[in-house]
Amino acid sequence: MSHRIDCLQYANWSEKIFRQMREGAVDAVHVTIAYHENFAEMVQQVVAWNRRFEAYPDLIFQGRTGDDVRRARREQRTAIFFGYQTPEPIAADIGLVEVCHTLGARFMQLTYNNQSLLATGCYEAEDPGLTRMGKQVIAEMNRVGLVVDMSHSAERSTLQAIEHSRRPISITHANPARWHPARRNKSDTVLKALAESGGMLGLSLYPHHLKGGTDCTLSDFCEMAARTAEVMGADKVGIGTDLCQDQPDSVVEWMRVGRWSREIDYGEGSASAPGFPPQPDWFKDNRDFGTIEAGLRATGLSADEVAGIMGENWLRFYDANFGPERSAA
Amino acid sequence: MSHRIDCLQYANWSEKIFRQMREGAVDAVHVTIAYHENFAEMVQQVVAWNRRFEAYPDLIFQGRTGDDVRRARREQRTAIFFGYQTPEPIAADIGLVEVCHTLGARFMQLTYNNQSLLATGCYEAEDPGLTRMGKQVIAEMNRVGLVVDMSHSAERSTLQAIEHSRRPISITHANPARWHPARRNKSDTVLKALAESGGMLGLSLYPHHLKGGTDCTLSDFCEMAARTAEVMGADKVGIGTDLCQDQPDSVVEWMRVGRWSREIDYGEGSASAPGFPPQPDWFKDNRDFGTIEAGLRATGLSADEVAGIMGENWLRFYDANFGPERSAA
Repeated sequence: MSHRIDCLQYANWSEKIFRQMREGAVDAVHVTIAYHENFAEMVQQVVAWNRRFEAYPDLIFQGRTGDDVRRARREQRTAIFFGYQTPEPIAADIGLVEVCHTLGARFMQLTYNNQSLLATGCYEAEDPGLTRMGKQVIAEMNRVGLVVDMSHSAERSTLQAIEHSRRPISITHANPARWHPARRNKSDTVLKALAESGGMLGLSLYPHHLKGGTDCTLSDFCEMAARTAEVMGADKVGIGTDLCQDQPDSVVEWMRVGRWSREIDYGEGSASAPGFPPQPDWFKDNRDFGTIEAGLRATGLSADEVAGIMGENWLRFYDANFGPERSAA
Repeated sequence: MSHRIDCLQYANWSEKIFRQMREGAVDAVHVTIAYHENFAEMVQQVVAWNRRFEAYPDLIFQGRTGDDVRRARREQRTAIFFGYQTPEPIAADIGLVEVCHTLGARFMQLTYNNQSLLATGCYEAEDPGLTRMGKQVIAEMNRVGLVVDMSHSAERSTLQAIEHSRRPISITHANPARWHPARRNKSDTVLKALAESGGMLGLSLYPHHLKGGTDCTLSDFCEMAARTAEVMGADKVGIGTDLCQDQPDSVVEWMRVGRWSREIDYGEGSASAPGFPPQPDWFKDNRDFGTIEAGLRATGLSADEVAGIMGENWLRFYDANFGPERSAA
């Protein structure tokens, strides 16, 4: 059986969820440990994860390299990789990029929904592209092996990040806008540029990113995956479910509003539907990855292509991009 | 004698300088206590100032209101008002706006030279204007009485800040670009919009902002002041010298590079002239304010107009803008 990797989750972590990861044969999960957390607050999330690694050593351990995914499979555990959905842990200090990588961060979004010090988020009215600091920080992320993630970023910033980065970048959790024109979903222009540069897309199971939302069917989702594989190449597509299991609605408010506004901002929700949307009944937790795999096979994708999408593509990407950059010489 | 206010200095503070302030009859100075300092580092600057207020109680005290300027004149001391040249002390937390005001901050630049979370600095390639967070933060600054300062910001962001702010904003230290087209100097469009909204310009004595640089003459500077008074109204012009007395060149590197880049950025300088430029010989320290006052009178400005520029205009602005916003009801 090939490796299974989910390249984005932000659950209300518990032993139950870690057991479900193993039941679903999920070898690695990229977990968000910072939205609007600053450096010190992010470190406290590392501390909380260290306690979980101590408490459930038979279920989870901290992943740092692609080989940790293979080890997880051998040992029947799940490797947990850290990432940030905003660059707030580094704030204005480029020196913290290397420190964050040392602490285990392997993905960092250059923006969440708003303008950051580095680039522009998808909810701003205009998108001037990478900032002066953004260009410097991408070079430093390239150097140490912290992968650029543009899941929540605006289009021009994303294209510039693809162009400027010396190493492939990622969109860990989003879907094609042509399938479902959510603000966070990506144009074919972005998907093609991403793929041509060796980057990866993780397909999202978050209902706001799905055609039909909660009512999206498994076959609709898997047909979209097959079409995306045609656009990008089947080796450039993976999964990044954006699963927010067992989270109270206060968490989605934190994601959207953080501390940047005194007014409420509903993001992908609305005043009448401010909370987390319910998951489709065919993907409620980590035990449902087999359902997705079966659905992908039913689209006519080859066994190798499906294995790639379920995890082998991310594993190859992890192998290539989580360590220091090799010198050009 | 009218009140004298310098609305921007960042010196290497010492008893010598505080004595020179009094020798120059300077009743109030707005001092920068944060460039790239984060909140905790800014608080340490407050602590350092508290020690100076204890050490030199006969020379200086912390200013919080316009009345403190009058008190300084009565008591023959100098009121020191705090300000920030970047919004890094509040970082991503709008709640810190009120806390910073409580700690004494009275001016905060929405940007230094780069893109911030709030707006765009004058060295970025493009200027998309105020961000989503920027609009929220201006409203909060208006509410508590922390004045928006756009001295280092790009033009469109500046015009939008003037438009969006319910209270007048400031450009504490810059000159008209028509006189000297430095990147930091301001267009007539900005100066007129600023004046029409009740805002204030502080004229800069920093050589990079002066026509001819260090060789700029007193009469050139004062003629420029008189022309600016024609454009904006003499009641909208003050002084903000940007005096960086006794600072080592490492400080100008900190101002420009902070922690955002691993490469050097020369800002207004250059590889061949990276340090602080020498001051013109007619304005070297706080004792030279009388020279400027005499120079302004020689241009034909009235005594009242000169008194306004030397401090009465800023005093009126301090009176109106350093306290909580009065309710519209």
